[in-house]
Amino acid sequence: MDLPKSIQDLVESFEMLPGIGPKTAQRLAFYVLRLPLDDVKRFSESVNSIKENTKICKECFNVAEDELCSVCANPSRGRQTICVVESPLDVIALEKSGYKGVYHVLHGFINPIAGVGPDEIFIPQLFNRLSLLGEAGVQVSEIILATSTSMEGESTSMYINRELVKNYGDSIKVSRIGKGLPMGADIEFADERTLSDAIQGRTTI
Amino acid sequence: MDLPKSIQDLVESFEMLPGIGPKTAQRLAFYVLRLPLDDVKRFSESVNSIKENTKICKECFNVAEDELCSVCANPSRGRQTICVVESPLDVIALEKSGYKGVYHVLHGFINPIAGVGPDEIFIPQLFNRLSLLGEAGVQVSEIILATSTSMEGESTSMYINRELVKNYGDSIKVSRIGKGLPMGADIEFADERTLSDAIQGRTTI
Repeated sequence: MDLPKSIQDLVESFEMLPGIGPKTAQRLAFYVLRLPLDDVKRFSESVNSIKENTKICKECFNVAEDELCSVCANPSRGRQTICVVESPLDVIALEKSGYKGVYHVLHGFINPIAGVGPDEIFIPQLFNRLSLLGEAGVQVSEIILATSTSMEGESTSMYINRELVKNYGDSIKVSRIGKGLPMGADIEFADERTLSDAIQGRTTI
Repeated sequence: MDLPKSIQDLVESFEMLPGIGPKTAQRLAFYVLRLPLDDVKRFSESVNSIKENTKICKECFNVAEDELCSVCANPSRGRQTICVVESPLDVIALEKSGYKGVYHVLHGFINPIAGVGPDEIFIPQLFNRLSLLGEAGVQVSEIILATSTSMEGESTSMYINRELVKNYGDSIKVSRIGKGLPMGADIEFADERTLSDAIQGRTTI
């Protein structure tokens, strides 16, 4: 049986999304078909307006509704600490940790195999931001490199660290987020790399 | 951090869908944000038009583009055999089996706990269809009950069978889809119910 074209169109749209295969796409499309018309209209409208109504924060390149994202627009956030992350989703996650500084969103990581160099993500904008802040007399005291601990995340952090040392020497402290065992983990099942990070990153009690 | 409203709206729309939790909804919304504008427009349009452009087949209640679904509109399908299924997705799956008859889509199953009785799904329409076919001189020879083998699917089949016997006696053969081991299954890991079905449904070679 050929699916009616309007259903097939929605199946194909769902299939574009990550982690959604042909079967799930079909199931979702039929689910949408049975939703109340109001919900369907709202869904369509929210897909339609997401690109138009979302801006990029001019300070930190996080997603925003206005010129500044809600973090940068908050006067109580410490501007002396900048936490460098790969994506806006990382900002959402880190906000739950109680971090009180500001962010810089790279929108990706250095990945030479995929042809993504330092200039393809928002690394030049980080240095530009630092020099503008310097001109404005704001002294950034620490940059926390909070890219993921994958190989690409590590090399992105290493690259930024090297460039920061080259340009700012000791005047800006550069740190990497702590590595070790996640909460609730069994030492028995942890991989050797995590354990070696945990030993190195041990703290005195 | 509060998400920008346009992103939050889409996250909430995705969260309505089955099997999509808050984290996945966020990830999907951010993925849509990065899609090319054309793809986003097409996605929005396909959501918007799915309800408007989809009809229900007046014969079998399958989804359709016109008055009749593509199965009922096909003159080469055998109208003497009607396969009763729970949903249009089951039609898609059964079409791959090479079945050459027509269908009747119930759009659900009898589920007293959820308040779904025989009249809430398209069971009265099945009997109406049979009597209209009888008036038109078409003799239905077999009804295959292909509801799922869950408890609800079984009781839906049992109910329809009882009503068919009450109304048509022996004049219509009623069958239930074959039950047993699925292809590639290990007998060792099969549950006792499946094994008992497989023994009862054994065929001579």
